[in-house]
Amino acid sequence: MGTRTEPPEGDQPEVLQANEAFYKSFENLDMEEMKAVWHKSHYITCIHPGWQIISGWDNVMVSWKSIFKVTEWIRFLLSDIQVVVRGGTAWVTVVENVSMQVDGKITSGRVLATNIYERTQNGWLLVHHHASGSEPPEAEGGKEMTVN
Amino acid sequence: MGTRTEPPEGDQPEVLQANEAFYKSFENLDMEEMKAVWHKSHYITCIHPGWQIISGWDNVMVSWKSIFKVTEWIRFLLSDIQVVVRGGTAWVTVVENVSMQVDGKITSGRVLATNIYERTQNGWLLVHHHASGSEPPEAEGGKEMTVN
Repeated sequence: MGTRTEPPEGDQPEVLQANEAFYKSFENLDMEEMKAVWHKSHYITCIHPGWQIISGWDNVMVSWKSIFKVTEWIRFLLSDIQVVVRGGTAWVTVVENVSMQVDGKITSGRVLATNIYERTQNGWLLVHHHASGSEPPEAEGGKEMTVN
Repeated sequence: MGTRTEPPEGDQPEVLQANEAFYKSFENLDMEEMKAVWHKSHYITCIHPGWQIISGWDNVMVSWKSIFKVTEWIRFLLSDIQVVVRGGTAWVTVVENVSMQVDGKITSGRVLATNIYERTQNGWLLVHHHASGSEPPEAEGGKEMTVN
């Protein structure tokens, strides 16, 4: 659970709290909680693993609703957290060690995420989430490694 | 090549320019150009498709060097670009329509990217790049869609 918060600037604890609330809402599969952690605006964006880019409040919320619908159970162990705060913006990079149950089948894996937050009157709110699957270290010879 | 730049704030053209310089340096497979578009700091981070999170100037540059070494040729057609500028920070979401040649074999595909920039004395510099493979739209029933 190593947490890097360099360079020190301002609101890292608050940003980490917002980040935890995001994953908690996901674990709880609770749309009201999920809505509360996002900035309610037309320019929010979200990339779920294997999906296209989704933008705008309505579309992003519909995506979470559809994910919650098929997910029976999900738990996150976050690691390699790095937070950078710059004025009213902050970004978090994090490894999501995920265990989940879908259609009665339990799976687990590592997902890498970038979460961007904005400071608002309602605290730090999520404006962008980018999550993508990660090859296990032993598969590092994969062809896709050279794409970008 | 739709470019969304909402909400309007400040330096979008400069950020777009920095973003283009980043992809140009990649197309040119030129380490000096690549070094020039990144912020030279210990907290920069980079996620290549299928890789783990890489952090710090040295590690990020080594990763590009190794990618350039195996890439014979690469071209990007960027689409669905959205830029948000907040004070001295900006983030870009973009679809990288990539064509590349590795080991004599030409492949193409869609990669989704999040690029975060910071305004510095040397202009807008990249502080985070997250790129991940994207399933084509016709494959949207994929299991991974429900992970996150």
